[in-house]
Amino acid sequence: MEFLVRAQNTLPPDTADEERARLKKGERARADELRAAGILKRLWRVPGRNATIGLYEVADATELHDVLASLPMFPWMDITVEAVATHPQEQ
Amino acid sequence: MEFLVRAQNTLPPDTADEERARLKKGERARADELRAAGILKRLWRVPGRNATIGLYEVADATELHDVLASLPMFPWMDITVEAVATHPQEQ
Amino acid sequence: MEFLVRAQNTLPPDTADEERARLKKGERARADELRAAGILKRLWRVPGRNATIGLYEVADATELHDVLASLPMFPWMDITVEAVATHPQEQ
Amino acid sequence: MEFLVRAQNTLPPDTADEERARLKKGERARADELRAAGILKRLWRVPGRNATIGLYEVADATELHDVLASLPMFPWMDITVEAVATHPQEQ
Amino acid sequence: MEFLVRAQNTLPPDTADEERARLKKGERARADELRAAGILKRLWRVPGRNATIGLYEVADATELHDVLASLPMFPWMDITVEAVATHPQEQ
Amino acid sequence: MEFLVRAQNTLPPDTADEERARLKKGERARADELRAAGILKRLWRVPGRNATIGLYEVADATELHDVLASLPMFPWMDITVEAVATHPQEQ
Amino acid sequence: MEFLVRAQNTLPPDTADEERARLKKGERARADELRAAGILKRLWRVPGRNATIGLYEVADATELHDVLASLPMFPWMDITVEAVATHPQEQ
Amino acid sequence: MEFLVRAQNTLPPDTADEERARLKKGERARADELRAAGILKRLWRVPGRNATIGLYEVADATELHDVLASLPMFPWMDITVEAVATHPQEQ
Amino acid sequence: MEFLVRAQNTLPPDTADEERARLKKGERARADELRAAGILKRLWRVPGRNATIGLYEVADATELHDVLASLPMFPWMDITVEAVATHPQEQ
Amino acid sequence: MEFLVRAQNTLPPDTADEERARLKKGERARADELRAAGILKRLWRVPGRNATIGLYEVADATELHDVLASLPMFPWMDITVEAVATHPQEQ
Repeated sequence: MEFLVRAQNTLPPDTADEERARLKKGERARADELRAAGILKRLWRVPGRNATIGLYEVADATELHDVLASLPMFPWMDITVEAVATHPQEQ
Repeated sequence: MEFLVRAQNTLPPDTADEERARLKKGERARADELRAAGILKRLWRVPGRNATIGLYEVADATELHDVLASLPMFPWMDITVEAVATHPQEQ
Repeated sequence: MEFLVRAQNTLPPDTADEERARLKKGERARADELRAAGILKRLWRVPGRNATIGLYEVADATELHDVLASLPMFPWMDITVEAVATHPQEQ
Repeated sequence: MEFLVRAQNTLPPDTADEERARLKKGERARADELRAAGILKRLWRVPGRNATIGLYEVADATELHDVLASLPMFPWMDITVEAVATHPQEQ
Repeated sequence: MEFLVRAQNTLPPDTADEERARLKKGERARADELRAAGILKRLWRVPGRNATIGLYEVADATELHDVLASLPMFPWMDITVEAVATHPQEQ
Repeated sequence: MEFLVRAQNTLPPDTADEERARLKKGERARADELRAAGILKRLWRVPGRNATIGLYEVADATELHDVLASLPMFPWMDITVEAVATHPQEQ
Repeated sequence: MEFLVRAQNTLPPDTADEERARLKKGERARADELRAAGILKRLWRVPGRNATIGLYEVADATELHDVLASLPMFPWMDITVEAVATHPQEQ
Repeated sequence: MEFLVRAQNTLPPDTADEERARLKKGERARADELRAAGILKRLWRVPGRNATIGLYEVADATELHDVLASLPMFPWMDITVEAVATHPQEQ
Repeated sequence: MEFLVRAQNTLPPDTADEERARLKKGERARADELRAAGILKRLWRVPGRNATIGLYEVADATELHDVLASLPMFPWMDITVEAVATHPQEQ
Repeated sequence: MEFLVRAQNTLPPDTADEERARLKKGERARADELRAAGILKRLWRVPGRNATIGLYEVADATELHDVLASLPMFPWMDITVEAVATHPQEQ
């Protein structure tokens, strides 16, 4: 099933560039794995914010949590998820 | 997977008693079917309100919507759902 | 550019079945046209609600409004839109 | 009576791993005691968050507070509780 | 245990005076019974509104709901309840 | 007149035990004085939170502020007050 | 003591002109009485709305409620009040 | 000075076409007058809604209210205004 | 024109007494100047909070900002303003 | 297309004057470039706050994000954007 996932990054502005770069690189690598696995289907940037909206396809909410917790930036992300149902027009 | 489902009944106070009784009876019958099917696992009353909180177990959000839409009172219910994940302590 | 569009249908529960069917049919037909035109890219059902989340691709907010206003159910829809930016990982 | 209890963990991301592990272990041990006592009936993970929803059965709000305050993580938890009534369909 | 209960009366302004007087009288009679039973301990008026805040003492949330639903004005009241715990300073 | 007063204690979790004990002791002493003066009529614990709801009787909002500001924990308390009127049923 | 009082007029747009004029005239007359009595100290219009903010001086919240309930438009007004304290700089 | 003004049109969906056309025409005529007078400087459509955001230049909030109240659709508009200051970069 | 201005002081509780006294003294001196100039017409204390509500008379929002920014405590104040119009009853 | 952009500056009050001046100067220089490019069409100060509202004209939300992220103060700005459509009266 699909979930829309909003993630606001709360990494403090004074984080060292090196640490920031390391986290960002890891984040991208993990996201690419999730894309390859068909789990991360879309990812948008919320304009003006260090935040994203993602469309995930997983078995259930438990898998979704494990997927999100596997992201290197997870400890600094304020996340809310929304389960979405298939619309009859797309069935 | 499990969902917590809040449903506020918005049936107008001046609905005819007969119609109200008919809807309530149908609601109970359908809820009993969902209990028998292992879908409606718990149902609480929100104290002071014509509202409930239910714990549903379904395959996904699409089945959840179909289940909720099958309730006779559905057209008058203001519903919000929340997908919940299994906690490691219960696995 | 893409927009996420939330639409809550506020058609009164006591609307005549005929009128409801007419509107729903027209809604589907117009949505199919928008799909064929590459404008309506995804449509989800918000579980438990007579509401949807749509992913639209349009030139700008002005075209988006014209597209939404062309839906037969528009006068009864409470809509909020959110402009989303392309994420660097998808560029 | 039963309460639904939402708990958001606000332990800072830069807490030492050792301290975090110690707290988590203590949290689990206390939760197991509460389960054995029939007080903690269910525990869910809020997907994407370091947060939980628990179903507690206690005598009243005063016992509930004592139970929650006995958790090692209590000083870092932002908690809201909701008293729920038994629904006639379950009586 | 005690609950703080907020009740906003939503009876339409154009309700017939007779009906309004009948409901108000019944409301007062039932409230007096609840006072005599030690259930309704305090009742305040929210200044400027047709609304009240009550302090109720009941066994649990289920009894609270039954008590509130027994008020003649119940179908027109928008109610929210809050379970409160005994403070150590009052024990 | 009476006020309902909500106070959320925001003292940081890492405050030294000694300082915390000193403040708590002073808080209790001052609260007892306010009780003896007939000003603090009730005090509840918000279950699950380091927060209280108090019922105060004072001459007006100015005296209320002075009373609250006299509490040793005042600098760390996030307080909101609500003026309540006497209900005709209690007059 | 003083209160800031917000009042949103919810009289339906299709109210007959005559009834509207009658209510408005009565409202003004009663407001003038309250001004003469030193109770209504200021009255502002919320720009763009059929709403006002008033500064009232009364003995307490109970008198405030009686004063507000004496306004002819009271049944159609959605009112919220805020008790304000004298600032040391004005004492 | 300038104000940003949000106006949500709440005219019921079942308003007669004739009445709607009459109001819309009057609305446009009055808006054109306000444009000619240098009062209505910009007007945007909120995409997906029967709502607008306007930029008005007036002497003060009192003139703003008179201007907004002069619009034929005023009785059905839910309006909120925001006073904005000149930014030093534009002085 | 007049503005109602809410200001929540966010100076950290652990600010040195000397610094706090210096800021408070400067705040009072500047407020007295604004009173003498007819700009600060009223100032209330929000009971229970380190917060105020002020009534200011200025030419426009730009002057209001300059006035507020001239207060020594400005960098620690969380301020929201509301433009209010003259009510016909006071004209 | 146009966007209304709200930006609250969250730079801590204890930032060194030198750093603050450096950032402000850079902010102004970049804003002037955006004005020259026809991207930043208007900029208002929110009275009483270290915050602005800007009117931007860009190709889409992706360009908008790049523009905002190019501001030197971006890491300390809490930004929300709103896509606005051209109103028929301005077409």
